[in-house]
Amino acid sequence: MMEKASIQSQAGYGAWLNHLPLAEGAYREHAASWTKAVVAEGTELCVLTALSELEDGIAKLTGKRPEKDIPQNGSRYIAIGTFAGSAAAKETFSREEQAEVAAEGFRIRTSGRSIVIAGASAQGVLYGAFHLLRLISSGASLDELNLLENPVNGIRMINQWDNIDGSIERGYAGNSIFYANDDIVDDLTRVRDYARMLASVGLNAISINNVNAHRYETMFITERFLPKVARVAETFRKYGIKTFLSINFAAPIEVGGLETADPLEASVQEWWKERAAEIYRYIPDFGGFLVKADSENRPGPFTYDRDHADGANMLADALRPFGGVVIWRCFVYNCKQDWRDRKTDRARAAYDHFTPLDGRFKDNVILQVKNGPMDFQVREPLSPLFGAMPNTNMTIEFQITQEYTGQQRHLCYLVPQWKEALEFETYARGEGSTVKRVADGTLFGRSYGGFAAVSNIGDDANWTGHPLAQANLYGYGRLAWNPDLTSEGIAAEWITQTFGSNEQVLETVSGMLMESWSIYESYTAPLGVGWMVTPHYHYGPDVDGYEYSKWGTYHFADLHGIGVDRTVKSGTGYTAQYQGSNAEVYESLERTPDELLLFFHHVPYTHVLKSGKTVIQHIYDTRFEGAERAAGLTAKWNSLEGLIEPSIFEEGKQRFLIQEEHAQHWRDVLNTYFFRKSGLPDALGRTIY
Amino acid sequence: MMEKASIQSQAGYGAWLNHLPLAEGAYREHAASWTKAVVAEGTELCVLTALSELEDGIAKLTGKRPEKDIPQNGSRYIAIGTFAGSAAAKETFSREEQAEVAAEGFRIRTSGRSIVIAGASAQGVLYGAFHLLRLISSGASLDELNLLENPVNGIRMINQWDNIDGSIERGYAGNSIFYANDDIVDDLTRVRDYARMLASVGLNAISINNVNAHRYETMFITERFLPKVARVAETFRKYGIKTFLSINFAAPIEVGGLETADPLEASVQEWWKERAAEIYRYIPDFGGFLVKADSENRPGPFTYDRDHADGANMLADALRPFGGVVIWRCFVYNCKQDWRDRKTDRARAAYDHFTPLDGRFKDNVILQVKNGPMDFQVREPLSPLFGAMPNTNMTIEFQITQEYTGQQRHLCYLVPQWKEALEFETYARGEGSTVKRVADGTLFGRSYGGFAAVSNIGDDANWTGHPLAQANLYGYGRLAWNPDLTSEGIAAEWITQTFGSNEQVLETVSGMLMESWSIYESYTAPLGVGWMVTPHYHYGPDVDGYEYSKWGTYHFADLHGIGVDRTVKSGTGYTAQYQGSNAEVYESLERTPDELLLFFHHVPYTHVLKSGKTVIQHIYDTRFEGAERAAGLTAKWNSLEGLIEPSIFEEGKQRFLIQEEHAQHWRDVLNTYFFRKSGLPDALGRTIY
Repeated sequence: MMEKASIQSQAGYGAWLNHLPLAEGAYREHAASWTKAVVAEGTELCVLTALSELEDGIAKLTGKRPEKDIPQNGSRYIAIGTFAGSAAAKETFSREEQAEVAAEGFRIRTSGRSIVIAGASAQGVLYGAFHLLRLISSGASLDELNLLENPVNGIRMINQWDNIDGSIERGYAGNSIFYANDDIVDDLTRVRDYARMLASVGLNAISINNVNAHRYETMFITERFLPKVARVAETFRKYGIKTFLSINFAAPIEVGGLETADPLEASVQEWWKERAAEIYRYIPDFGGFLVKADSENRPGPFTYDRDHADGANMLADALRPFGGVVIWRCFVYNCKQDWRDRKTDRARAAYDHFTPLDGRFKDNVILQVKNGPMDFQVREPLSPLFGAMPNTNMTIEFQITQEYTGQQRHLCYLVPQWKEALEFETYARGEGSTVKRVADGTLFGRSYGGFAAVSNIGDDANWTGHPLAQANLYGYGRLAWNPDLTSEGIAAEWITQTFGSNEQVLETVSGMLMESWSIYESYTAPLGVGWMVTPHYHYGPDVDGYEYSKWGTYHFADLHGIGVDRTVKSGTGYTAQYQGSNAEVYESLERTPDELLLFFHHVPYTHVLKSGKTVIQHIYDTRFEGAERAAGLTAKWNSLEGLIEPSIFEEGKQRFLIQEEHAQHWRDVLNTYFFRKSGLPDALGRTIY
Repeated sequence: MMEKASIQSQAGYGAWLNHLPLAEGAYREHAASWTKAVVAEGTELCVLTALSELEDGIAKLTGKRPEKDIPQNGSRYIAIGTFAGSAAAKETFSREEQAEVAAEGFRIRTSGRSIVIAGASAQGVLYGAFHLLRLISSGASLDELNLLENPVNGIRMINQWDNIDGSIERGYAGNSIFYANDDIVDDLTRVRDYARMLASVGLNAISINNVNAHRYETMFITERFLPKVARVAETFRKYGIKTFLSINFAAPIEVGGLETADPLEASVQEWWKERAAEIYRYIPDFGGFLVKADSENRPGPFTYDRDHADGANMLADALRPFGGVVIWRCFVYNCKQDWRDRKTDRARAAYDHFTPLDGRFKDNVILQVKNGPMDFQVREPLSPLFGAMPNTNMTIEFQITQEYTGQQRHLCYLVPQWKEALEFETYARGEGSTVKRVADGTLFGRSYGGFAAVSNIGDDANWTGHPLAQANLYGYGRLAWNPDLTSEGIAAEWITQTFGSNEQVLETVSGMLMESWSIYESYTAPLGVGWMVTPHYHYGPDVDGYEYSKWGTYHFADLHGIGVDRTVKSGTGYTAQYQGSNAEVYESLERTPDELLLFFHHVPYTHVLKSGKTVIQHIYDTRFEGAERAAGLTAKWNSLEGLIEPSIFEEGKQRFLIQEEHAQHWRDVLNTYFFRKSGLPDALGRTIY
């Protein structure tokens, strides 16, 4: 038997940080001529990291490792450092130019024979370094660089849903890189490589354990685990990333030995203060706590007749002396709903729970709100919480891991979905009150704001299982840095850095990524109604899987029609949670966009959509088309044989075959279900079983 | 905290072997007067066990421990022994009377001042001892006992589906009593107590590991585990029970290091012969192998283009020199069926696979055939294999563990279901060719026959989770001994021995047991169609749960009707697998019994049943009634408060509450499903959601 190659050396491991050698030729010469040396001024951790990343990256790109000192022969070089620590930085940029750089921003300028990367902080320098490598990968001329980049969002966070037993909740790319055998791993090589990937796209925060904190994870905030948590934090610190922990609200009882976790009890407050103090002794720049409380059977303040503000503020008080924050998830709903009760509406829950608390949260509390009111479906409206709590810090939560979007066996490039969410107009302060401006804090002038997202990586050699699923992690980071980047632009960046600059690869993969969300939507749950998946696993069609369950996720299909009536007039009244014309649009059967029709309205199968088709014919047509388009992905990928590294090509090929077959399964199950239920034939007479 | 009482001392642990003290009074005096001593002649293992069981049982029943020698004062006593080993036995029964006793049968006779329990074997003596204890528990007069009992079935077997990790496949009463932490447990106390229970109802064989033999269990036939398997076998041997092992057909590869498991390969045959020889060195009376091959992804002879006869005969040859047998399961079907293919019919599979092999199996091969053609549903027709293989040994397989019948949270006394199966007329040799006569071997004059069943016990203190589920284990054993016993009679025996002789308890619990199957059927899948349960778990309603799956278990409900057309005329042709008038009855929509209608026919919801109701109204009515009757069980059980040991009462109470609520859930899900699908209202206008 062949010895298995180390994971680090396997194709896909390098992801977009492969720094593939530039093709021999003029540009390679150009790049090499500008990178004879990298000169770092300052000893800040992230400046040193930036130096080493530039050295390694340039060596791979140009085939020549840069020197460390200014070349004596007049050759060109790169100079890096902070305005405070580097003479080059200070001299290259005027006072005004320096002032324009935000805490984590950077400037890059070609100046004489040097390219200067400068930041107000070492972190900014690191981001600038990765940016320059990206520019070189993409073949940009280095002769006249002059750019300023500031991150739009302050918090650019990743949530790991990793468990200490090594499993990952909703993980589709192997086991955890953080944990094994009920402990934090000792070998942090892979965690460091992950930190590189995150920093390279500008991410600056990570919560390292599942929001569902189980028995052992509850002890992460104690001496039993803090030494190892501190090692992890140290690894991330080198890449400018702050470490957070998901905590268990019942920890005072479970590990503290107290009889209560009541946030208004002095003993409980004291206990958390002691915990905070101890954590900061181990991790001086600890980020804070991520909290899932009173949600899906997690403990929380409700147990003590307290509200979310009481719970969050108590933790916030404990963290404030050390500069920490509490990130409190708004994914709160009744997960023991009676399906027979048609008036309760899970979509309403977060808004109903949280809006009355607006203004009551301490200034170092941040609410983390999922993009949609339900749960990361392929299509949902925006959560009406965005724009509804002007006096509260808020981040938007996305899900990079493809729980409901094909679980990294199907291709689903999510950046376009996120873009759509971010551009959504809330009307909270009139026109232009987009979700992205709520998230970044500017709309309401909040001190904290940003993005959070559930990671999609595991210990698979290529990190994400599906080789193209890396694009979602990459895109998330880039979008968190700048929500105005385009989906196509991000795709192109990722493709070029990952696969090189072959035009056919770029065009083909970009096309595949850009149509993938639409393809996935077209064979799964139709017109915004959601779910229709196998319970618990959330993979594969099961139209009635959640229909008679406690989870509040129903479609109400009968022989006449389908959909959830969420109108004020005759339904759950959810539409009233929206502001301005949104409320009117969603209340109106005529005005609601087709793709969200069944989220807001219950209609007969014969209802005619804006597209001119009936609902039933739309279901049939899109399912047939979706399966065909999925098969088209296989063909497109296969056209790249020989242009993509063989093992990555093969991994992709296997997944596209799975997707193709599984899309047919979706098509047939949904068509048969609706044909059996409605009795209405396909206008084109295609095979329905 | 209170120290937890040992499991052995907890209520329910004693099950029907509690030997509850007889009430003070005439009968207790009577019993005591007959049991001053128990005199055993012979040193056979089971005679010694019989002695000790009688001593312990009588001590508990009468409050007085019997002496070991014939009383010198003229008092009355019990004498036990085999005809060969005991003078009392030999003298009490004539040569003819002795000849009438089968290998494992016994006679009991009151003779002068002694009651003589005699058998042709020590095992028979043990069964006689338990029988006498049963008689005393039930208050029978001992003055003129004179009875002969021979077991009707030679093989009376229990199948454990226990895994070495301590889990039990389809177990609903805790973890395994045999295994923990990937090993066989060292403390076999509980295994011994289980052996007592099994022997007390006449069971004589047990396979101790899951038919799905995983990695470690595959090694049970090697020196790694044989010493511990031998200890288990020794424990069962004392109770007259032979130990079997479930084997992995691929063991020659997986543990033998061979490159094939082809049954026609000499090296494979040799390997199994060596294994057999080694097993018998450790366990001289080893029963043999139980085999699940080419079934649900298990390996088997198909891999090598061999058939089941090739596979079974190869193993049979290995076991024959030692007197062992191969029990080969017939649960073989395509578990990767395409739901879109309406012609393939899982119900046909066992018959289609096995009948062509009739006459090809060696004489120490026994086919184990599930009662129905599908899989232990609440209602199925009988497997047409019974009666179709006259030249093959066969046992009937039941499932005591309530996989599809409420998982020991719902009450479902299965003896009436089994009785119905056993009385089924196959017409294989004309009238009177009942399934019970196929199973016991007499119909075709086969050398082996009998019963097998999947156990329902685990390490819960009361063995079976639901306290009344013990009745199924008890009843299975009694029925295996004598299929002509009545369901009511078995229930009465079990109740009296378990709860004592209170009339109200007897009447109430007996009534509850007797109606429980019908109640469970009345709120779950209707009219024989089966399934409609949550996939994998098999608990709780999910009407479409298996509808679009690979498992071959469909109902084909659409807006017009429901059911599986298995007729020759227009369906899968399954009805032709039956003999005589059965084929005609099932082929005929008019003649098929209501309770199996949807198993054999696809009908409109408006089809009128023999009951005079339409199918849809039947569905609504039985669901409403079923939920009401389930609530009635709670009320009946609650009426026994104070008459049942409090902790057992409480356990039962909790379960009946669960059943009551869950029956409502079943009612509402099924009614809503069919109302939404058919659009037909309930004639009585009751609430459907």
